[in-house]
Amino acid sequence: MILVIKNDITQQQYNHILEKIKELGFIPHISKGVKKTIIGLIGEQAEKYKEIFEAMDGVEHISEIEKPFKLASREFKEENSVIKINDKVEIGGKKIVVIAGPCAVESKEQIFKISQELKKSGADLIRGGAYKPRTSPYTFQGMGEEGLKLLKEVKDTLGIGVVTEVMSIDQIEKVADCADILQIGARNVQNFDLLKEVGKIRKPILLKRGMATTIKEWLMSAEYIMSEGNYNVILCERGIRTFEDSTRFTLDLNAIPVVKSLSHLPIIVDPSHGIGIRNFVPTMAKAAIVAGADGIIVEVHHKPEEALSDGPQSILPQQFDQLMKDLRKLVEVIGRNI
Amino acid sequence: MILVIKNDITQQQYNHILEKIKELGFIPHISKGVKKTIIGLIGEQAEKYKEIFEAMDGVEHISEIEKPFKLASREFKEENSVIKINDKVEIGGKKIVVIAGPCAVESKEQIFKISQELKKSGADLIRGGAYKPRTSPYTFQGMGEEGLKLLKEVKDTLGIGVVTEVMSIDQIEKVADCADILQIGARNVQNFDLLKEVGKIRKPILLKRGMATTIKEWLMSAEYIMSEGNYNVILCERGIRTFEDSTRFTLDLNAIPVVKSLSHLPIIVDPSHGIGIRNFVPTMAKAAIVAGADGIIVEVHHKPEEALSDGPQSILPQQFDQLMKDLRKLVEVIGRNI
Amino acid sequence: MILVIKNDITQQQYNHILEKIKELGFIPHISKGVKKTIIGLIGEQAEKYKEIFEAMDGVEHISEIEKPFKLASREFKEENSVIKINDKVEIGGKKIVVIAGPCAVESKEQIFKISQELKKSGADLIRGGAYKPRTSPYTFQGMGEEGLKLLKEVKDTLGIGVVTEVMSIDQIEKVADCADILQIGARNVQNFDLLKEVGKIRKPILLKRGMATTIKEWLMSAEYIMSEGNYNVILCERGIRTFEDSTRFTLDLNAIPVVKSLSHLPIIVDPSHGIGIRNFVPTMAKAAIVAGADGIIVEVHHKPEEALSDGPQSILPQQFDQLMKDLRKLVEVIGRNI
Amino acid sequence: MILVIKNDITQQQYNHILEKIKELGFIPHISKGVKKTIIGLIGEQAEKYKEIFEAMDGVEHISEIEKPFKLASREFKEENSVIKINDKVEIGGKKIVVIAGPCAVESKEQIFKISQELKKSGADLIRGGAYKPRTSPYTFQGMGEEGLKLLKEVKDTLGIGVVTEVMSIDQIEKVADCADILQIGARNVQNFDLLKEVGKIRKPILLKRGMATTIKEWLMSAEYIMSEGNYNVILCERGIRTFEDSTRFTLDLNAIPVVKSLSHLPIIVDPSHGIGIRNFVPTMAKAAIVAGADGIIVEVHHKPEEALSDGPQSILPQQFDQLMKDLRKLVEVIGRNI
Repeated sequence: MILVIKNDITQQQYNHILEKIKELGFIPHISKGVKKTIIGLIGEQAEKYKEIFEAMDGVEHISEIEKPFKLASREFKEENSVIKINDKVEIGGKKIVVIAGPCAVESKEQIFKISQELKKSGADLIRGGAYKPRTSPYTFQGMGEEGLKLLKEVKDTLGIGVVTEVMSIDQIEKVADCADILQIGARNVQNFDLLKEVGKIRKPILLKRGMATTIKEWLMSAEYIMSEGNYNVILCERGIRTFEDSTRFTLDLNAIPVVKSLSHLPIIVDPSHGIGIRNFVPTMAKAAIVAGADGIIVEVHHKPEEALSDGPQSILPQQFDQLMKDLRKLVEVIGRNI
Repeated sequence: MILVIKNDITQQQYNHILEKIKELGFIPHISKGVKKTIIGLIGEQAEKYKEIFEAMDGVEHISEIEKPFKLASREFKEENSVIKINDKVEIGGKKIVVIAGPCAVESKEQIFKISQELKKSGADLIRGGAYKPRTSPYTFQGMGEEGLKLLKEVKDTLGIGVVTEVMSIDQIEKVADCADILQIGARNVQNFDLLKEVGKIRKPILLKRGMATTIKEWLMSAEYIMSEGNYNVILCERGIRTFEDSTRFTLDLNAIPVVKSLSHLPIIVDPSHGIGIRNFVPTMAKAAIVAGADGIIVEVHHKPEEALSDGPQSILPQQFDQLMKDLRKLVEVIGRNI
Repeated sequence: MILVIKNDITQQQYNHILEKIKELGFIPHISKGVKKTIIGLIGEQAEKYKEIFEAMDGVEHISEIEKPFKLASREFKEENSVIKINDKVEIGGKKIVVIAGPCAVESKEQIFKISQELKKSGADLIRGGAYKPRTSPYTFQGMGEEGLKLLKEVKDTLGIGVVTEVMSIDQIEKVADCADILQIGARNVQNFDLLKEVGKIRKPILLKRGMATTIKEWLMSAEYIMSEGNYNVILCERGIRTFEDSTRFTLDLNAIPVVKSLSHLPIIVDPSHGIGIRNFVPTMAKAAIVAGADGIIVEVHHKPEEALSDGPQSILPQQFDQLMKDLRKLVEVIGRNI
Repeated sequence: MILVIKNDITQQQYNHILEKIKELGFIPHISKGVKKTIIGLIGEQAEKYKEIFEAMDGVEHISEIEKPFKLASREFKEENSVIKINDKVEIGGKKIVVIAGPCAVESKEQIFKISQELKKSGADLIRGGAYKPRTSPYTFQGMGEEGLKLLKEVKDTLGIGVVTEVMSIDQIEKVADCADILQIGARNVQNFDLLKEVGKIRKPILLKRGMATTIKEWLMSAEYIMSEGNYNVILCERGIRTFEDSTRFTLDLNAIPVVKSLSHLPIIVDPSHGIGIRNFVPTMAKAAIVAGADGIIVEVHHKPEEALSDGPQSILPQQFDQLMKDLRKLVEVIGRNI
């Protein structure tokens, strides 16, 4: 249920509405747009208080959100959400954001060498896994806290923000301490307890789509995070599982216009996992931007054949540099910048 | 098995090779590239004659094609195939080809009205079904021969080529008589008898991918046509079937770079069937071109709500016109024209 | 639209109704059940004649069929359809029907040797392809008419009915001349012209489910055949395409109860193509029967390693013999016989 | 790497081997079969110590496990694993195990009423969720600890074991305190941190297959649990995601023979989630048992229309009673009991 607030509401009237909402046991979800302020009152029981709020001063009218996702829906917030990452970067605005880096942090030398090159080529943020979800318990599981420290060093030394994955509740604090964006991996897209917990912090969350998650279920997972108060959710399409076996996954670019129509949240694309074949990654990255994505996240490694994970889908630094050049020309045509 | 021919071969030596091939019961498949001429000798038994050809004058060397598709493979033909449609249009070259029109030919007025507008906006070819594959036997099945006549009239009057579907062997002659390109629909992608028969004519064939056909199987279907001597095959990605239910199919743009790496055949994209939602069609069309497609085929109807089939995915003429404008800017950046 | 006929209708009244239906341009689809006779009047325009028929003597009442498939629906015919194959065999009754044989007819010796063994073990019908739909144009395509002749010989000599595939319209007459059941393969499940043509004969049709065909679409394909007057349709589940790669396809036994609830048509199961691994075929065959299938169709070859197609999924004659023994015990428990 | 131990090994030799393994930093995984004892030495580095162990007394020979899953593989353990649940129940032996109960614990009255009826009909264990993974954050999330207490009461009062889901690491202790089997839900099948933690306890774990998890990935998830020392893993097939939309998921019975060939672990089937339609659940349960499943887990509710979750797929107590009767007859034929 959404309370659309009158433009000429007084502060007192406004506070009164918020108090009433809390009194009834709800959290007021506030969205201040350019033209309108609205307050979301969400939960199975919300509707039965409709009449109370209709009668209150300052409430213009009340409307229902038909979709099962509420805070994530365009009905709740008409304008695109622009999520502030740090002093230099925001996602969801006119500027395309480029996140790049190795699949995993492997050593100080590795992460510094790659990060420097990527920064020079124009990356906005560095990605790199410290905790790695691997199909086999016997393969490299990431450097853990050691990896987080190296990412922090990269951030402090090079002055570039970092994105890294959080796999369990007990890692949230440590990861949040280092990362500008916390990533929830595809395999945890419906790990609801983890979603709720990252909903309690205020750092931006990169929520990857699961490999068999419909777009609606994915938005419901975003809703889990938002319902706890963290509205800084960035969606990331990374390929779905289909019968096709000549690519690693099937990168689903259709998801971009569909998400944009259903939700105000920004969406970026991960062509590396999506198609899984190095030489096709730049092509899919460019197609994603033209399809309306707000950014890309790509795996780059200077020696992919020696990478401890995801070597075959990591592009080389020079491929990344060329991709940035291509994107610069492309975004101009579609009215964005990079 | 491929015979790579010496550059300084004499006509007599060349004829001698061809005769030998025919004598052994094979059809010689000839590919004259800019730098090399090669002759394909294809079939389960071909290899056992390897030594005979190795010993012949004019044969530089012999190599195997590892892929199950032979004539369709990049190994058989390194350069992109450019397929001549008519005096004005060819597919697979630098120019992006745009095919547009209604799902089905519904009346003289309808097909003329749409075709005129599309030609004005810059379409290269008109699409329109006379024979319609419909899930239900009780819905409109197309105008049949009457529809073909109208398409011929469009072609003769407006001077623009037409593309239309052939659903069974007995329709081939009639359709070939009218159409510049014969379309094989997604549901017939493994109708092998039909494929063989369209392989016996020389008109270009638009081969749609089946909704559960892997890229390799699809190239095998192209091979069926080519093995009969018709090398004028244009592939068309049109969406695959997945679990996702917010789009009609999942348009698989990953197929474009994969096909381009495996095959010399041109590939175009059908975003109308692929995503199935009008307002998202132009977006996916643009993404397809940036992903490397050689063209698009889109459904346009001036009154989609009255269309006898596929209304919800047909764009309006003004949307098509805008798409053409957007594409003109886009193709410049990627080094192509339209 | 269904006309439910009064039990005490006179022959004259009945004829009058049929004439009226034909006069209006419809084909009367008649279903005589134990308790009721109903006449289907099907097509987009049928409804507008509702009042005419309501007023006719002998019509008890008129009802609509909500489902998009009409003649195939339980609403049209409440009782299970039992389809007579020949003097000894019918499908859809209490008796489980077992169809077995090699993927393809390969030689006189082969088909006779296998058929004799299978008959001895208790097979009701022999399967064997004369026309083979193969992914590659360069592999064995079946013996064609020669194969049909051998099947006819098997039938005449051993006194056992045969099932074989028809791939194109021009083969229908020849195949119908030899076969007790004509099979439409998975790849032709939406080859609508072929469906219409086999709808014009009266021989039983085995309609395989396509690898990406929903159950509802499959019933629509059955409807294509039935709408032409051939009600002798037997459905055959044979595995769908999914992401799982440890089996050839994913045999979908869920389809059995779903089909049984939606349709009166019999359904059999092909575990050979469905799971595609020899040693698992008998297990899935037994599970299919317990799930409610009216029969099975299995590939058997006495030398699978030498089979010209589908060797890895063909069971050995002794495995088939054991399967029959197991099934005999199993069907007793579920109130059927074999 | 597997060390196959000589039958006449002395205790001293045996201890010596174990000490050496620990000294090198590995955990010895011991499997004592009827005929052979083997010790698994697993990890990326294991192979380089091969020669050391080959030279040791008491080691008959050393072999590699080719599969990516090691402890879960048939190569590691030839005989079926039989997992002891409590004094009365074990899973994986000749006896079919039946787990039944409501989707969620909703109240004392509800869980007691259902449990009593199910026990009477012959259920071996009661299922019931206290923590519920729900797509929407706004729907019933389970009774939590209150639900666990009720399950404990059921167990103590009725003397029947209980199965309930654990969704996060911090719940493990509480759930293990009450449950005879801890369930890992489909959405957590690749929540690797959770898998590792339940690997550290010794209670049986029911590991549901993910909706897009291949059989091999699923066995890798079992390996995560086993690699931490908890070998008591029971697999549970519960339906995969496919394009078919007339069932909730596609219950994949093919997984049963495939798992049985690859692994020694027991496998049970959840037809309730798998097909998702009440009246088809008993049919699929029976088919699963005939396909080789070691048990079933079904949702039963006495008022499904009032259930707080999964009502449409819950069967009624009388349907469950009938299912038990049918299964009793069925298992006899396949050489098992219930």
